[in-house]
Amino acid sequence: MPTNRQWRLAARPKGQPKPSDFKWVEDPAPQAGPGQVLLKTLWLSLDPYMRGRMNEGKSYAAAANIGDVMVGGTVSQVVQSNVPALKVGQIVSAFAGWQDFQLSSGQGLMPLDPKELPITTALGVCGMPGVTAYVGLLDIGKPKPGETVVVSAASGAVGAAVGQIAKIKGCRAVGIAGGKDKCDWVVKEAGFDACVDYKAGDVFQQLKDACPKGIDVYFDNVGGDILEVCLRLLNTFARIPLCGMISRYNDDGSAPGYKNLLSLLANRALIQGFIVSDHLNRWPEAIKDLRTWVKDGRMKYRETISNGLESAPDAFIGLLRGRNFGKQLVKVADPT
Amino acid sequence: MPTNRQWRLAARPKGQPKPSDFKWVEDPAPQAGPGQVLLKTLWLSLDPYMRGRMNEGKSYAAAANIGDVMVGGTVSQVVQSNVPALKVGQIVSAFAGWQDFQLSSGQGLMPLDPKELPITTALGVCGMPGVTAYVGLLDIGKPKPGETVVVSAASGAVGAAVGQIAKIKGCRAVGIAGGKDKCDWVVKEAGFDACVDYKAGDVFQQLKDACPKGIDVYFDNVGGDILEVCLRLLNTFARIPLCGMISRYNDDGSAPGYKNLLSLLANRALIQGFIVSDHLNRWPEAIKDLRTWVKDGRMKYRETISNGLESAPDAFIGLLRGRNFGKQLVKVADPT
Repeated sequence: MPTNRQWRLAARPKGQPKPSDFKWVEDPAPQAGPGQVLLKTLWLSLDPYMRGRMNEGKSYAAAANIGDVMVGGTVSQVVQSNVPALKVGQIVSAFAGWQDFQLSSGQGLMPLDPKELPITTALGVCGMPGVTAYVGLLDIGKPKPGETVVVSAASGAVGAAVGQIAKIKGCRAVGIAGGKDKCDWVVKEAGFDACVDYKAGDVFQQLKDACPKGIDVYFDNVGGDILEVCLRLLNTFARIPLCGMISRYNDDGSAPGYKNLLSLLANRALIQGFIVSDHLNRWPEAIKDLRTWVKDGRMKYRETISNGLESAPDAFIGLLRGRNFGKQLVKVADPT
Repeated sequence: MPTNRQWRLAARPKGQPKPSDFKWVEDPAPQAGPGQVLLKTLWLSLDPYMRGRMNEGKSYAAAANIGDVMVGGTVSQVVQSNVPALKVGQIVSAFAGWQDFQLSSGQGLMPLDPKELPITTALGVCGMPGVTAYVGLLDIGKPKPGETVVVSAASGAVGAAVGQIAKIKGCRAVGIAGGKDKCDWVVKEAGFDACVDYKAGDVFQQLKDACPKGIDVYFDNVGGDILEVCLRLLNTFARIPLCGMISRYNDDGSAPGYKNLLSLLANRALIQGFIVSDHLNRWPEAIKDLRTWVKDGRMKYRETISNGLESAPDAFIGLLRGRNFGKQLVKVADPT
């Protein structure tokens, strides 16, 4: 009987998570009962929202309990099946968490064809992060051709998709990322019009130069100082889809408050928090468009791969610090 | 030839405006030329937005220049007319500013019938403040029956209308106001379900008690600490029409920043700045409904009247400090 290795929540982090907030547990793998499949994790997705679940109290997702297996999207393989529609060996996108094995009724599993697209795209550009970009930009940001769309964490899974969708929709796309390598990729590979390096001096002046007509849509992944700067550059009737505030997820209460909210009033601007799971009805169209664009070569993506389930906490801590470059994945096992 | 007494902008206020920021000027009254009417001011409306116009730089309205007559809504009387549709003696709502006389082409003047409603309502509940409440609450706040609507500056011209429209639409209406007299009026006269006195201790706890089901719509007139408290009590998918931030209009940069924006993300909430003049298409319906409700007795209002154009700066400074109770008006002249 194989072992099910798991990462469980050991303690609620104070500020930045540390390795001891996670506990490594090894249990015997479960067996598929009637109406069940047993999934084996091949790839685990690491995403900023997971930090929120580690806290007590209300976030946009229910808080995890101490001792729970860490949740997460996966690409998994069916290794036992008592569900007629799912065959042993089939690869699916799932939500099996930080572990080797998970039982499933089959509900919510989406079969993947490795010949059509690399299976890891189901966790990135053609999965939750891509749909997040699609829904947030198009449904809340509502960009019009010729407008300027700014996105933070621009080389990340969501950010890179936002800017490229903006380009497809006829907008000027301006990214914000940390470091020359990321900024170079954002402009040269992902085709943004410009990318501001927030580690390279005066962000306000850099962004002002990159947005000579001001900002119409700011897709926010980070909150904090970058949001403050963008608030100062908003155009009238600007829209801010608020997707994440990763710069503040580890805030212990000492982070400075936002000073520039009066801009929302002066510019009659909108800021709206959203989470992709509230927009399930948009998934089919979004996934269809995203897959088309990836196959067409109009949508580029980057991945950072961490090897082995053991490495997940360290990779996750790195993600919160911006150490990843593109979609952060953990390679857990090869398909059989 | 009569004298046209005027208040002009003398200096841009630093923080709280002071009397020396206004300059009293007396000029000969102009004469109506071809295609013009001469308006005599009977009532002048004082409104928080005027503070923004006194600043340099971008606000939601163009900045006034030093030396300009202070702008403002008025109830005026036609005293000379070269416009066939407007008769001498007719009373109209206008935008004649802080002065005795103004020339007009007649455009934008709305005739008022003193027998139908008190003419001062055209500057308050059945004028710009009432339409502001109507548009902000219904079009941005989108309250559903049974939801909880909170409004700050609840005894003011906008706030009192917001809560009463919320009641008409089947919501729980909770006001926030300063002092027992205002809170009593808000509940006993205006018919809100509850009113929190922000001068009477722990606003968070008071508001939490008054909103046992949380906040679905927070119509913000004041910003600052009250907005912070409301952010902490938002329900999922809450909406915040951002109408004003009067607590910060005199901010010299030292006011604390907003700490609770993460609530927008956690609750997938919306905050949207707006200004009523962007919604001119909604005026006819709004004015019709508001007049009906006032005549029906379903919409109550309060007025604070300051006597004589001379008193305008002092009354305006008082308005920014919350010294008024209901709509702040200046009585400039009796009709002839």
